[in-house]
Amino acid sequence: MDTVKLKKILQSHQSGALSIDQALDSLKNLPYEDLSFAKIDHHRHIRQGIPEVVFARGKEKGDVVTIAQAIFKKSGKLLITRASQEIYKKLKITGAKFHRLSGMIEAHGEPKKTGQVLILSAGTSDIPVAEEAAVTASFLGSRVVPVYDVGVAGIHRLMSARKALQSARVLIVVAGMEGALPSVVGGLVDKPIIAVPTSVGYGTSLGGLTALFAMLNSCVPGIAVMNIDNGFGAGCLAHRINTLR
Amino acid sequence: MDTVKLKKILQSHQSGALSIDQALDSLKNLPYEDLSFAKIDHHRHIRQGIPEVVFARGKEKGDVVTIAQAIFKKSGKLLITRASQEIYKKLKITGAKFHRLSGMIEAHGEPKKTGQVLILSAGTSDIPVAEEAAVTASFLGSRVVPVYDVGVAGIHRLMSARKALQSARVLIVVAGMEGALPSVVGGLVDKPIIAVPTSVGYGTSLGGLTALFAMLNSCVPGIAVMNIDNGFGAGCLAHRINTLR
Amino acid sequence: MDTVKLKKILQSHQSGALSIDQALDSLKNLPYEDLSFAKIDHHRHIRQGIPEVVFARGKEKGDVVTIAQAIFKKSGKLLITRASQEIYKKLKITGAKFHRLSGMIEAHGEPKKTGQVLILSAGTSDIPVAEEAAVTASFLGSRVVPVYDVGVAGIHRLMSARKALQSARVLIVVAGMEGALPSVVGGLVDKPIIAVPTSVGYGTSLGGLTALFAMLNSCVPGIAVMNIDNGFGAGCLAHRINTLR
Amino acid sequence: MDTVKLKKILQSHQSGALSIDQALDSLKNLPYEDLSFAKIDHHRHIRQGIPEVVFARGKEKGDVVTIAQAIFKKSGKLLITRASQEIYKKLKITGAKFHRLSGMIEAHGEPKKTGQVLILSAGTSDIPVAEEAAVTASFLGSRVVPVYDVGVAGIHRLMSARKALQSARVLIVVAGMEGALPSVVGGLVDKPIIAVPTSVGYGTSLGGLTALFAMLNSCVPGIAVMNIDNGFGAGCLAHRINTLR
Amino acid sequence: MDTVKLKKILQSHQSGALSIDQALDSLKNLPYEDLSFAKIDHHRHIRQGIPEVVFARGKEKGDVVTIAQAIFKKSGKLLITRASQEIYKKLKITGAKFHRLSGMIEAHGEPKKTGQVLILSAGTSDIPVAEEAAVTASFLGSRVVPVYDVGVAGIHRLMSARKALQSARVLIVVAGMEGALPSVVGGLVDKPIIAVPTSVGYGTSLGGLTALFAMLNSCVPGIAVMNIDNGFGAGCLAHRINTLR
Amino acid sequence: MDTVKLKKILQSHQSGALSIDQALDSLKNLPYEDLSFAKIDHHRHIRQGIPEVVFARGKEKGDVVTIAQAIFKKSGKLLITRASQEIYKKLKITGAKFHRLSGMIEAHGEPKKTGQVLILSAGTSDIPVAEEAAVTASFLGSRVVPVYDVGVAGIHRLMSARKALQSARVLIVVAGMEGALPSVVGGLVDKPIIAVPTSVGYGTSLGGLTALFAMLNSCVPGIAVMNIDNGFGAGCLAHRINTLR
Amino acid sequence: MDTVKLKKILQSHQSGALSIDQALDSLKNLPYEDLSFAKIDHHRHIRQGIPEVVFARGKEKGDVVTIAQAIFKKSGKLLITRASQEIYKKLKITGAKFHRLSGMIEAHGEPKKTGQVLILSAGTSDIPVAEEAAVTASFLGSRVVPVYDVGVAGIHRLMSARKALQSARVLIVVAGMEGALPSVVGGLVDKPIIAVPTSVGYGTSLGGLTALFAMLNSCVPGIAVMNIDNGFGAGCLAHRINTLR
Amino acid sequence: MDTVKLKKILQSHQSGALSIDQALDSLKNLPYEDLSFAKIDHHRHIRQGIPEVVFARGKEKGDVVTIAQAIFKKSGKLLITRASQEIYKKLKITGAKFHRLSGMIEAHGEPKKTGQVLILSAGTSDIPVAEEAAVTASFLGSRVVPVYDVGVAGIHRLMSARKALQSARVLIVVAGMEGALPSVVGGLVDKPIIAVPTSVGYGTSLGGLTALFAMLNSCVPGIAVMNIDNGFGAGCLAHRINTLR
Repeated sequence: MDTVKLKKILQSHQSGALSIDQALDSLKNLPYEDLSFAKIDHHRHIRQGIPEVVFARGKEKGDVVTIAQAIFKKSGKLLITRASQEIYKKLKITGAKFHRLSGMIEAHGEPKKTGQVLILSAGTSDIPVAEEAAVTASFLGSRVVPVYDVGVAGIHRLMSARKALQSARVLIVVAGMEGALPSVVGGLVDKPIIAVPTSVGYGTSLGGLTALFAMLNSCVPGIAVMNIDNGFGAGCLAHRINTLR
Repeated sequence: MDTVKLKKILQSHQSGALSIDQALDSLKNLPYEDLSFAKIDHHRHIRQGIPEVVFARGKEKGDVVTIAQAIFKKSGKLLITRASQEIYKKLKITGAKFHRLSGMIEAHGEPKKTGQVLILSAGTSDIPVAEEAAVTASFLGSRVVPVYDVGVAGIHRLMSARKALQSARVLIVVAGMEGALPSVVGGLVDKPIIAVPTSVGYGTSLGGLTALFAMLNSCVPGIAVMNIDNGFGAGCLAHRINTLR
Repeated sequence: MDTVKLKKILQSHQSGALSIDQALDSLKNLPYEDLSFAKIDHHRHIRQGIPEVVFARGKEKGDVVTIAQAIFKKSGKLLITRASQEIYKKLKITGAKFHRLSGMIEAHGEPKKTGQVLILSAGTSDIPVAEEAAVTASFLGSRVVPVYDVGVAGIHRLMSARKALQSARVLIVVAGMEGALPSVVGGLVDKPIIAVPTSVGYGTSLGGLTALFAMLNSCVPGIAVMNIDNGFGAGCLAHRINTLR
Repeated sequence: MDTVKLKKILQSHQSGALSIDQALDSLKNLPYEDLSFAKIDHHRHIRQGIPEVVFARGKEKGDVVTIAQAIFKKSGKLLITRASQEIYKKLKITGAKFHRLSGMIEAHGEPKKTGQVLILSAGTSDIPVAEEAAVTASFLGSRVVPVYDVGVAGIHRLMSARKALQSARVLIVVAGMEGALPSVVGGLVDKPIIAVPTSVGYGTSLGGLTALFAMLNSCVPGIAVMNIDNGFGAGCLAHRINTLR
Repeated sequence: MDTVKLKKILQSHQSGALSIDQALDSLKNLPYEDLSFAKIDHHRHIRQGIPEVVFARGKEKGDVVTIAQAIFKKSGKLLITRASQEIYKKLKITGAKFHRLSGMIEAHGEPKKTGQVLILSAGTSDIPVAEEAAVTASFLGSRVVPVYDVGVAGIHRLMSARKALQSARVLIVVAGMEGALPSVVGGLVDKPIIAVPTSVGYGTSLGGLTALFAMLNSCVPGIAVMNIDNGFGAGCLAHRINTLR
Repeated sequence: MDTVKLKKILQSHQSGALSIDQALDSLKNLPYEDLSFAKIDHHRHIRQGIPEVVFARGKEKGDVVTIAQAIFKKSGKLLITRASQEIYKKLKITGAKFHRLSGMIEAHGEPKKTGQVLILSAGTSDIPVAEEAAVTASFLGSRVVPVYDVGVAGIHRLMSARKALQSARVLIVVAGMEGALPSVVGGLVDKPIIAVPTSVGYGTSLGGLTALFAMLNSCVPGIAVMNIDNGFGAGCLAHRINTLR
Repeated sequence: MDTVKLKKILQSHQSGALSIDQALDSLKNLPYEDLSFAKIDHHRHIRQGIPEVVFARGKEKGDVVTIAQAIFKKSGKLLITRASQEIYKKLKITGAKFHRLSGMIEAHGEPKKTGQVLILSAGTSDIPVAEEAAVTASFLGSRVVPVYDVGVAGIHRLMSARKALQSARVLIVVAGMEGALPSVVGGLVDKPIIAVPTSVGYGTSLGGLTALFAMLNSCVPGIAVMNIDNGFGAGCLAHRINTLR
Repeated sequence: MDTVKLKKILQSHQSGALSIDQALDSLKNLPYEDLSFAKIDHHRHIRQGIPEVVFARGKEKGDVVTIAQAIFKKSGKLLITRASQEIYKKLKITGAKFHRLSGMIEAHGEPKKTGQVLILSAGTSDIPVAEEAAVTASFLGSRVVPVYDVGVAGIHRLMSARKALQSARVLIVVAGMEGALPSVVGGLVDKPIIAVPTSVGYGTSLGGLTALFAMLNSCVPGIAVMNIDNGFGAGCLAHRINTLR
């Protein structure tokens, strides 16, 4: 379409219908976004390999189903976060899968898995967030290894996972309460670490702010942190790092 | 003095100068604190074995010296926190000692040391607070073992201190930044742990609040926490626990 | 298993199949956690005398029952915090007891009680947290003396408990709102004090943060503080202190 | 002046120069503040008996002196808060007095003192704020009784002041750190209590917010609270209550 | 009872059964609270004229009814805050009255009313808190004048209440949102002002903290502030001030 | 009424019944609000062209309907914010319209629209707040152009709206999460920008405080900010600016 | 320059040197910002009439002078905020003026003033921020009327400014402490109001956050708020509104 | 040493001096850290290629010099953060370089540079933090491309850097104030983005917390965030990602 417009201007000028100044004016006034940004946008969809992801929480179930089916029809893929069994049942998409722990619905994710994303969780209550990261990264095409319930109160459990720690390319470390696990892991590996604080805890856990701040203050240099409970974002970033050429 | 008053009432009654009702009235109106509370107060000094401790910060140097000399004259002992070399020099008390790391001045502390208080610090910047705890507990009569710079980023350093960990009766764990050390230590020992957050850190360390909150949220049950940088309080409490009959 | 591995290395070396250097290498590469950490973990269970405690809040009732029954089968003991009558009824464990005030379920706690843990609460609304501490310490084997509703607004009520104050080895002081009770108690006794702020209050009580901060700022040196509403942790720590050899 | 205007309108109407509707319009458009508010303002000065008080902090010394002298010339009275010896010396007002503890300068306050305002301070560091309240209330004409250093850690000290507590009409209770004193005092008297939190403390004292929040959450009903370190405001309010007809 | 004990000691001494030193010891060990504090407590009930007030929120309805009936039986008076129609119906106390706006239940309050407590509210949403103050002060025996919906956005409404403002002995000013009303009122009267912030508002009203802080920072000296939504406390304090002899 | 009073004073003076001084006194003592403030109030209603707007949230449905019908009867216009379909159905006002997205009910708004208020929203979840602004400004008489879902993550979408940006007189920019949109828009236009943070987000969005603070810190000078979710206020202000003569 | 590039492409195509597809490619790859954004940027400078404003605080004096002179050379105009007399003296620009109260330096601002921006300040300490707004708006070409020291504690002072209030097109209301002034002003006028909180105050003024939050929660709809102490931004916005065609 | 111990055990067993069970016991009790952790530590130094980095702020200059020289002697490399010209001059290390903008001192960093780390800063005040990241990543061996002053208020400046954006492997985006830049960049590239908030700003920038929270709430999925002003950490992480095999 843009190309059509451009061609027309060029031809009008070549034919003499437009003087050089008129042609210049036309070109200057062409909506730039039609030239450049749209292309970038197109790139964005191609490169990320993700159709629009649906964030189900706070939306009415019927709306989630409608949006999800539309997306699936257009792209042949689907990822819904913070969903429920009920939405899953209404969805009726062949091949879709409901992940109960993370509340995610996934359909036709990338089948070939590459690299190794290690996902650690401190406690069992942190597993839903860890799983959100795991399902996301796997959906995008990363090989994912989960190692759960290795909190710092029993440091030997973490030590037992030494091999997994050493074969990972990227690590996602999920922890609530005091958020200490990323620091301990950070002292044992030399790979990129993405820390995800969770809202698990009570009193001074402040809904996850304490774990967040603790992770940002890690005495190990080079740990990056996500928003509270943001397993999805961690999965995206880990996949980006894992698949860096 | 109170006793004198009491005696007088009793004698007046015995002699008939006071009727039984008059004596009752006199007794009821005796300031109760003269009977009971003063005694408690007296007990307080005896049992704690600490003369009033001088908190030097925010006081003028001359005032600190005057107060300290008065206390020393009365009690023969002296402990000043947050002091300076300058105050120490002006003090002119034989046997007094200036602890440069903690900024404490001590004179004639309890010579016989008992039990074992282990004091761990996460980083080198946390040492002043750790030393404040160490000097305090030692002054009061506890045997103190310092193990510094054993932060969680190098978990093996903590492991090297295993023997010290196991022979302690009480542990003081001092850490700033993410405040993770108490949780890891808590998974390795079964003795009372006193966690002391420090104001070491920047940005989201929030002047020590992050370490404080992290410690309060420890996934290990039974860790008690002191105010930020409160090494003195930790030393007092550790000594109380260490010397429980 | 580890022992088997170790034996094989030693025998291979003795038999000459492994040179001393080869044997050394094998030993160095043995997963350390198999040697040491597992043992520590074993110790952890023995020394604490607590099977894993179940935190019921936020878990589905059926799950709590399943987990609790599994733990009871393995260890013959059980402690559940933040539970309900309903869970208790489904549990069907002989000898289990439901503590209505604290919402705890307990089965086969340590029968012999030792020492003396005094548990004070400021108001009647603080009793659930105080009871959580009481049931926990008692379950672990401490003798517990509760003294409730002795808030600072009626200082004489606290004074009436003078004897209990003086016979305690450890004190747990539970208070919400302005959290002033620990400071007043701290002026009357010379034993270790564990302060527990509660979320009782409204407006600027900030869900317990005000009581927490007040306790951390106590003008009495040596008071240790737990997370908001953390009666369980206070009970654990008090028991550890109470049973120090 | 306003009166002149009014008179002119009335006379113009009486003389027939203004119809009744024109007179009405003129009256409606008279600036109301000239009629009423100015009078109120005049009242304000009379009733409060305070000329404008000078808040010296943050102002240049020369400016403070100039303002203060102008006020003194007009009103014959003077009160400066947060001042210094240096300002005092430059002031050169006969009969002026510098209160070193509170940093206040006062001249020609109300000589006759009435009622009884009791001012309690928890610690010695709270005395400057307590003195600011004391000097203010005394300057305005209240009889003031200071009872300092009666913090809750030594409850017997407060009990010794029982008589003073019982003869007060209004109480100002000044405390930093955990801010517990107002609650304890509130349980002992039935007079109005004004609590003043101070910024004394460190770590979680949060510059006085903790004491403030604790006081607002007092378990004793009916304690009113001032801003942090606001001794001046407390003195004003106590005087107002003390002199209620 | 105490008197009996005292008499016995005195008589035993008089009769020679107790030496003077033994008598002294006995007296010193008499529980001091039996002498003094109990009396103070007795005073507390007499002087406040309030039986224990029941705070219904968070308590089970049946419990509230039981407690309230017990108190009423003992004292012949009753005040319940944050109650409901349902509790009222179950209560079955003759003469009890349910105040729907404030959710209070009152029975047999002080019939004779004295002085004048003016209660202002900024908006209609602040009325429940204002009414809590009004019912409380009236129950205790103060004459109460409510002037509601006079927020600063329509300053003329406040001005219309000028007469009420000037005839008050004490003012309670209730406001949520920006909490500006106390400052404006404070500029118009010279009587004690008690400001009560409410949790009315959204976003940055922070559940009433903004109104609270604004009131504490009033540019008018001498305004005292209560906890958020604490109409009951304001009513108690206003009555204390109003009835100062 | 006031006029009646005034007339009487003037006539009494003219007739000689009141001396000039007596007339002056009467005039000075007339309640000023009767003269001036009431007039201002009258102005307020005229100039704003809004009858009282009903804020439905937190009110009982029946009450909302009653209030709304009363207002409509008096003014012939109606605007209700945060309402529901159910209220709309009960309302039974001819010509009333329910805006589902914003939850507003409107009847007989200003029919002639003027100027151009551009309303941008960052995400689809921000639309309810944007619509509240849109309906408000339109009701008051502004022409409104909505451009939704132009968040900064897809900057080309914003660029496509370039023409709308340039033809606006005032812009309302609604955004939650990181609140970045106003800064980007501010770099592209030279018209007044009103930024409205929304509570959309989770974790560190802190209920909209993060977006609010981000907007207040915009690197573009001259962006004004409203309270969180305050679409109504933004609509009012935009209309005021848009209709400046 | 861009035009040159464009012309070359068009000519090359017309001459046949570039096929239409080659010409299309060239056009597509032209950096769009060269076409469009640069123009927008150019517009930005023209429309705002402000050369880059220098924010002096935190920069070294020498640097400020260098930058300022460069800007002045290029644009013939200059505005520096948060500057000092010292910088002014070093600047040596003819016609430059130093505004002592606001710490601004201005040279060759817009000489013709239009409209009417009213700037109110609550207290004398708020004047520096008010003056920053005043100097900015005036520099840009607005007529500015300052009305200072009209805080709500003396409401009659504000009333005296009624005429100024009514003749303003835009109002900037500057206040610290409780930040109540904008609400009161908002009830008296129907023009756009820009509220600027200042950091004036202590204790719970929280460095201006309390005034900020109070203003955002104003009970008057349609008040917009700037960052704390941001007089410059308020001046810019007021000028934009004031000069809306 | 450990090896010596191990050898002795093996030899004793081989010689028959230790039974197999005795040998097993000895092996189990060997301090595990001597076997395993030390090795890991050694790995840590090798793999990171960084000797201990010196954080100079808060340390005395002399101490920094001593520590730095010791490290340099041992490792032949040196990196000091938050240093000064003065320290640099005292250091006297050949080949050392002082980076004025970031306050870093570097000596003998990795000479061969690999990959491409793009470092963007929003404003000129953010450059010191951006430079800290740049110098760190370059020191470790990454090729670094800085693009500064491309804040969102002038979106075209960012667009001009399109080529740099597209050729980066990892991006570090540094911004203070509203922290919006990472979101806009995140919409334009598909590479890992590390966001660094700075403490640049005033008022509600809250020392960088606002920028931090905004970045954590980015509407672009997969942006990781560092502590406030933590350029060093960002440089470390970017290098780790950039050099992932």
